[in-house]
Amino acid sequence: MTPLSPPQPPLLPPPPRPVQKAELVRLSQTLLHVRALHWVVVEDAAAPTALRGALHPPERRDPPRASPPPRGPPWLRPRGVEQRNRALQWLRETRAPGESGVVYFADDDNTYSLRLFEEHPWRGRLAGGAGGGPAFRAAAGGGGRVVGFHTAWKPERPFPLDMAGFAVGLPLLLARPAARFDPQAERGYLESSLLGGLVSPAELEPKADNCTQVLVWHTRTEKPKLRQEEQLQREGRGSDPHIEV
Amino acid sequence: MTPLSPPQPPLLPPPPRPVQKAELVRLSQTLLHVRALHWVVVEDAAAPTALRGALHPPERRDPPRASPPPRGPPWLRPRGVEQRNRALQWLRETRAPGESGVVYFADDDNTYSLRLFEEHPWRGRLAGGAGGGPAFRAAAGGGGRVVGFHTAWKPERPFPLDMAGFAVGLPLLLARPAARFDPQAERGYLESSLLGGLVSPAELEPKADNCTQVLVWHTRTEKPKLRQEEQLQREGRGSDPHIEV
Repeated sequence: MTPLSPPQPPLLPPPPRPVQKAELVRLSQTLLHVRALHWVVVEDAAAPTALRGALHPPERRDPPRASPPPRGPPWLRPRGVEQRNRALQWLRETRAPGESGVVYFADDDNTYSLRLFEEHPWRGRLAGGAGGGPAFRAAAGGGGRVVGFHTAWKPERPFPLDMAGFAVGLPLLLARPAARFDPQAERGYLESSLLGGLVSPAELEPKADNCTQVLVWHTRTEKPKLRQEEQLQREGRGSDPHIEV
Repeated sequence: MTPLSPPQPPLLPPPPRPVQKAELVRLSQTLLHVRALHWVVVEDAAAPTALRGALHPPERRDPPRASPPPRGPPWLRPRGVEQRNRALQWLRETRAPGESGVVYFADDDNTYSLRLFEEHPWRGRLAGGAGGGPAFRAAAGGGGRVVGFHTAWKPERPFPLDMAGFAVGLPLLLARPAARFDPQAERGYLESSLLGGLVSPAELEPKADNCTQVLVWHTRTEKPKLRQEEQLQREGRGSDPHIEV
């Protein structure tokens, strides 16, 4: 048989989740449309995950800047808090005061409309828009201010917004260096813990046509069933571990 | 209160699935990178679904060309067969014999790497590549031919390939006008029913670096829980039906 395969790379540790590469490919292909984007990838692992080629094209790839320490069991702390705080720390360490920009906290399985990135001018403060699930959006009216929130869950929260439902002006973030996500925040209060250190609810600026457009969807990818792979492995015919999935 | 909202559009029937718009937005933003793409959208509904603005930008939108008749209960027939056959019929009715092109059967919740569309030259026949789930890929070797398939499920099938794992040259499809998906095909044999009318397994042309790259992921989007929306509706505070999600 003619050896047609290219030389095989060394074995790599598998990604933490089976669908991680698919999600990164998909998200990177959306972000690839956006000019002047700086994508800070903060991994949920103690060391950078070897996902060669997940981002497209390679020259748009940002190396992981801040790998968090291993975190405790998920029932002890809200997920992804240390990671997001490390990203905030990195911004404060590397950006000059007054540097323009908008900071958005994205998740690899959410769905982002490109229209989200056409939302301008950002006035450099803090913006709330429609987002979350079908039952979750900020409601706006009256002089370009957010006058209330449409939510069923814990409406008494100061900022009952999903992580995907707001963006922060970089100058504001740099001017309030103490603002961060509280790892001890009660469930649902993580967003409020950051936002409370930045603005009052009345200072929110409605975006997305006065909060009437949904531009982000809180989609989740199903965990794939791997029974067939397990069966093949029991038979000694498992999938080639050199092929990255 | 100043009326800041734009005039509201008339009420529209909801999409068949809660995540349909998110999936279409996400897929359209990937396909938007691809030049010379003709996207035939075949809807799984008796009439075109009103999903204004789902595709981005609007000028790339193709109107639904072939709405299938309502189909029977899912346990009677494989899903999406009539729809795909209507798309084949539309191609045969509108394309000139010998017109170049590659036909690919995409699903709105799968994940497609842009590298899939850089696979060329297509030799105008039929191509198999790696695809499906982590446990599913075509194995190739020996003179640029597909010499076997790596699968645990019904390996005795003539073409044990997932719908996402192959593409067909348009000239071949036009030259074999009787080839179609068999609505009566046994589970797992739908792909074989079309491919068997086009080529023999030995005529498959391996793509994706000799079937060593996974360029398509059979991702599925979780069905969202709408308990909070149901609760709001019971309280008479349901989400604004004019806001498309």
